[in-house]
Amino acid sequence: MTWSQALSESTGATVFLKNEHFQHTGSFKLRGALNKVLSLSSREKEKGVIAASTGNHGLGVAYAARIAGVPAAIYVPETASPIKVRGIAALGAEVRLVSGDCLEAELTAKKVAATQDQVFISPYNDIDVIAGQGTLGKEMLEQVSDLDAVFVSVGGGGLISGIAGYLKAMKPNVTIVGCWPKNSPILLEWIKAGRAIDVPEFPTLSDATSGSPETDTITFPYCQKWIDETVVVSEEEIGDSIRLIAESESSMIEGSAAVAVASLIRAGKAFRGKRVGVLLCGRNIDFGKFRSLIAPSH
Amino acid sequence: MTWSQALSESTGATVFLKNEHFQHTGSFKLRGALNKVLSLSSREKEKGVIAASTGNHGLGVAYAARIAGVPAAIYVPETASPIKVRGIAALGAEVRLVSGDCLEAELTAKKVAATQDQVFISPYNDIDVIAGQGTLGKEMLEQVSDLDAVFVSVGGGGLISGIAGYLKAMKPNVTIVGCWPKNSPILLEWIKAGRAIDVPEFPTLSDATSGSPETDTITFPYCQKWIDETVVVSEEEIGDSIRLIAESESSMIEGSAAVAVASLIRAGKAFRGKRVGVLLCGRNIDFGKFRSLIAPSH
Repeated sequence: MTWSQALSESTGATVFLKNEHFQHTGSFKLRGALNKVLSLSSREKEKGVIAASTGNHGLGVAYAARIAGVPAAIYVPETASPIKVRGIAALGAEVRLVSGDCLEAELTAKKVAATQDQVFISPYNDIDVIAGQGTLGKEMLEQVSDLDAVFVSVGGGGLISGIAGYLKAMKPNVTIVGCWPKNSPILLEWIKAGRAIDVPEFPTLSDATSGSPETDTITFPYCQKWIDETVVVSEEEIGDSIRLIAESESSMIEGSAAVAVASLIRAGKAFRGKRVGVLLCGRNIDFGKFRSLIAPSH
Repeated sequence: MTWSQALSESTGATVFLKNEHFQHTGSFKLRGALNKVLSLSSREKEKGVIAASTGNHGLGVAYAARIAGVPAAIYVPETASPIKVRGIAALGAEVRLVSGDCLEAELTAKKVAATQDQVFISPYNDIDVIAGQGTLGKEMLEQVSDLDAVFVSVGGGGLISGIAGYLKAMKPNVTIVGCWPKNSPILLEWIKAGRAIDVPEFPTLSDATSGSPETDTITFPYCQKWIDETVVVSEEEIGDSIRLIAESESSMIEGSAAVAVASLIRAGKAFRGKRVGVLLCGRNIDFGKFRSLIAPSH
């Protein structure tokens, strides 16, 4: 991790950034996908894996499958951005376009996987995927052994479940802070309600954490058990954090990563004097969006 | 290294980026400084090291000294940006402000080092510093063993001397391409003239490579011997490359890194079908400058 002068000075905490936006494919998703692919039997590897995603998970599965020499088919809604589709194809995965939206692509992918007896790789609802993301918790603790708290953005909950699972076993006094955009705090509302409920959702810069998790996801009980504190941030705070990291760290980060930064700033005073890790989970932001967020007129 | 889809498609070469802008302190300078500091005797380490720089070299020396537990004093012209001075101080180095410009700071630093019998760490005119930068050549070859060419920006020549020295020993058929901004091609003009000459210089986005090297620098004969091809690029090409990397790789890079990218694009056709490494040497770009370069109106 790298010490952040700007965030440390503005919060009074000693802030370390886990720069996972530097990861291959531009996000942490490769970790879970690679652990999953490497855990398969020879027969499963030969048959190839299936996933559905237009974003970071699709890139992660394609890259992991390439490393492991396993065929991969990624189901993508036909409305997906051609650039992202080309990125997945360039990594060697077979892209299969599905008419309809993301949910259609996912349902089709699952059906095909079941029919052909192939492994479907979920982006979060899979213990091997969660364990792969957990390697981030291991690295954070190796790099800064006396952490008091970690800030992690939550979508499907796979990332924070993996990190928290490791930290709760190895260093249970580390405070796990779950971070959400106000416009899409679905798992947070589930935690409050104690069960999966309908949560209204609005567009958010944190597109990588948006969308409802599967109601039976194994990440839900993990999040209920392991998340110690929660923070919710506005779209303006997310945009400001993208700009702050560009200005102070010379790094582009995507909205989901900025949710963790914005949450630290919002929660700041409570962590004064503490040693805090902030996970920058990805950098795959639309260039036009990034450019307008950092524009002087903004 | 990471394969670049955008640069590969636009040049017809297979292009790999060495993402050294992700390095601690935001540039490669840490490598040479760390090798130098670690090569010192116990007595030299105890006495502490001295350097002069407001930029990447100052950060690199401060960080390396901190890792090695060696005191460091960095001489800085009083006109230097307060943010950069704070960055160096935050790494634990003692900042000593000097009235006058960068040359004044350097001369003062050298005089003090000589008087106090301390080691002065040059940014490029030092075999241990050059060897440290050479670790980049080793890594590039480990990561992509069948490289045909590497593109490296040249200022004082320490970076390209280190990389070329390694590659010429281990894989002499790799073409070493030296890259310069048209506004400051000093070592290139020396190579053409066969000796150190006065070269007019104009402001450039590649501030990290600007300024005249010492006329007796040991990098000059290395560059004469090892650089196989040279490319010169305009300010517009440098700016376009900063924008291209932001758009296609979601990364901020500084002008000196963009010189290598722009040079590949300019030389493109000659490398069609080849496997090419491009060194992205740093990301420490002024935020306002970056913002205006990627603005839509630009």
